[in-house]
Amino acid sequence: MGAISSTPQKPCSFVTWVNNDNYALGALVLGHSLRKVETKHKLHLMYSKGVSTRMLELLKMVWDEVSSCDIIDSKDENNLKLIQRPELGITFTKLHCWRLTQYSKCAFIDSDAVVVQNVDDMMNYNEIAAAADMGWPDFFNSGVYVFEPSEETYRKLLEFALEHGTFDGGDQGLLNMFFKEWHLEGADHRLSFCYNVCPSAAYGYKAALKKIGTDIKIVHFMGHHKPWHCNKGVTPMPCFWSLWQSIYHEKVRE
Amino acid sequence: MGAISSTPQKPCSFVTWVNNDNYALGALVLGHSLRKVETKHKLHLMYSKGVSTRMLELLKMVWDEVSSCDIIDSKDENNLKLIQRPELGITFTKLHCWRLTQYSKCAFIDSDAVVVQNVDDMMNYNEIAAAADMGWPDFFNSGVYVFEPSEETYRKLLEFALEHGTFDGGDQGLLNMFFKEWHLEGADHRLSFCYNVCPSAAYGYKAALKKIGTDIKIVHFMGHHKPWHCNKGVTPMPCFWSLWQSIYHEKVRE
Ligand SMILES: O=c1ccn([C@@H]2O[C@H](COP(=O)(O)OP(=O)(O)O)[C@@H](O)[C@H]2O)c(=O)[nH]1
Ligand SMILES: O=c1ccn([C@@H]2O[C@H](COP(=O)(O)OP(=O)(O)O)[C@@H](O)[C@H]2O)c(=O)[nH]1
Ligand SMILES: [Mn+2]
Ligand SMILES: [Mn+2]
Repeated sequence: MGAISSTPQKPCSFVTWVNNDNYALGALVLGHSLRKVETKHKLHLMYSKGVSTRMLELLKMVWDEVSSCDIIDSKDENNLKLIQRPELGITFTKLHCWRLTQYSKCAFIDSDAVVVQNVDDMMNYNEIAAAADMGWPDFFNSGVYVFEPSEETYRKLLEFALEHGTFDGGDQGLLNMFFKEWHLEGADHRLSFCYNVCPSAAYGYKAALKKIGTDIKIVHFMGHHKPWHCNKGVTPMPCFWSLWQSIYHEKVRE
Repeated sequence: MGAISSTPQKPCSFVTWVNNDNYALGALVLGHSLRKVETKHKLHLMYSKGVSTRMLELLKMVWDEVSSCDIIDSKDENNLKLIQRPELGITFTKLHCWRLTQYSKCAFIDSDAVVVQNVDDMMNYNEIAAAADMGWPDFFNSGVYVFEPSEETYRKLLEFALEHGTFDGGDQGLLNMFFKEWHLEGADHRLSFCYNVCPSAAYGYKAALKKIGTDIKIVHFMGHHKPWHCNKGVTPMPCFWSLWQSIYHEKVRE
């Protein structure tokens, strides 16, 4: 009675993944933005071949842990099958996040996103938690999601992908078919859209943006136009574009 | 024991509202589309000043019940206050659907929508049930929603609107603030996007449309471009545009 459990709790972590130096610039800004909002969780970056040694050094200065993942070189049977489905390669690499079993829970965030307000409360949600995709809101957008690392889930995802492929050619289609019931789940699986706002939201429903704008927590520059491509974006949310640029210039570029 | 309750069950109804002869063309097509999918529920049309006598005769041929609602002429105190807020007039008119207490449950459908497959199962959902808005998916689109008629709710909605107004100038902003917790509710409040697909969905996420297309139940021509405006729409979903046109030519125009 009164004994305090001494089982060490596994930590939680934010996770991203990059495979080249351009997206790595995004990961640097993302990492710094998470520091800026004073997250108490770990920052874990996965990288694949294509990230330069120099860039990796920079990344290590802001991300607590980095690990490499390169499925195509792997030798196990599932991955051999995968080599016959090269279009799934990129998708599968992202799935490696489920193997980060040193963490009890994680939030994956695309490297083309920037955190605006503290989002540590994401770790209170349950797998799979995500926000609706604007294009077809029964599906979640896979740029931001909460998951529970598990070798078992990883294996099932791999099997599922090999059997069913992915209807949109990316991880979003795959994850939405695997976690098919997401849109029927309750509040512990549904992140507010404020956790994954894409700038084009400003086109569709200006009044909503005006009403909700100050609640925005994560801005995700999904699509072709990435903030590291140029200085002045023709973006419908110039304030967030500027936020990205200011972190970039203050923390990354000098 | 064995006694069968003789309390008559109130029926359920689909409901729309129109205030001019253009939208009335939409309501005719909507009504015929509901007949075509053999709904077993009632069809109730609310109309306001602006619908011609001749059009009303046509509407009565497909809608079981019609009723007029004209808040501005009303004499009660709430409505007097409302006269000082003329911008809320149109919004409030739609809210009159909550006064249809002859029904136990209703599904409101905008008159610029067409039903593609039977949607009688909408009456199994609970107030408020609706589908996410593509523009800001934490909000529901108020073109299609399941509600429970109640004078009490109507009064509360009126009071709420007088106090808070509507952030987007329409009923969607008002209903989303009144039913503020919608995006946190469970499956009995969340209609699949298939119950309120707007044609612009075809732009954003083509792969999703291809995968889900055959499940679409209601197409909603939201926005400026309405199918009664011209014969050939520059619409991203030509098949549904054609469906509207074919019902129009077969059932309405001759
Ligand atoms: O060539 C690539 C493509 C993608 N990614 C990673 O995968 C994520 C998803 O891709 P992207 O953000 O381009 O997709 P979008 O959000 O635009 O659909 C990126 O944020 C990166 O973290 C990467 O590192 N290299
Ligand atoms: O001048 C109008 C405007 C609206 N409506 C009714 O209110 C609904 C909502 O308006 P609308 O569909 O034009 O809005 P949208 O769906 O394009 O946002 C319509 O479908 C009609 O049922 C109407 O009868 N007359
Ligand atoms: Mn992205
Ligand atoms: Mn409409």
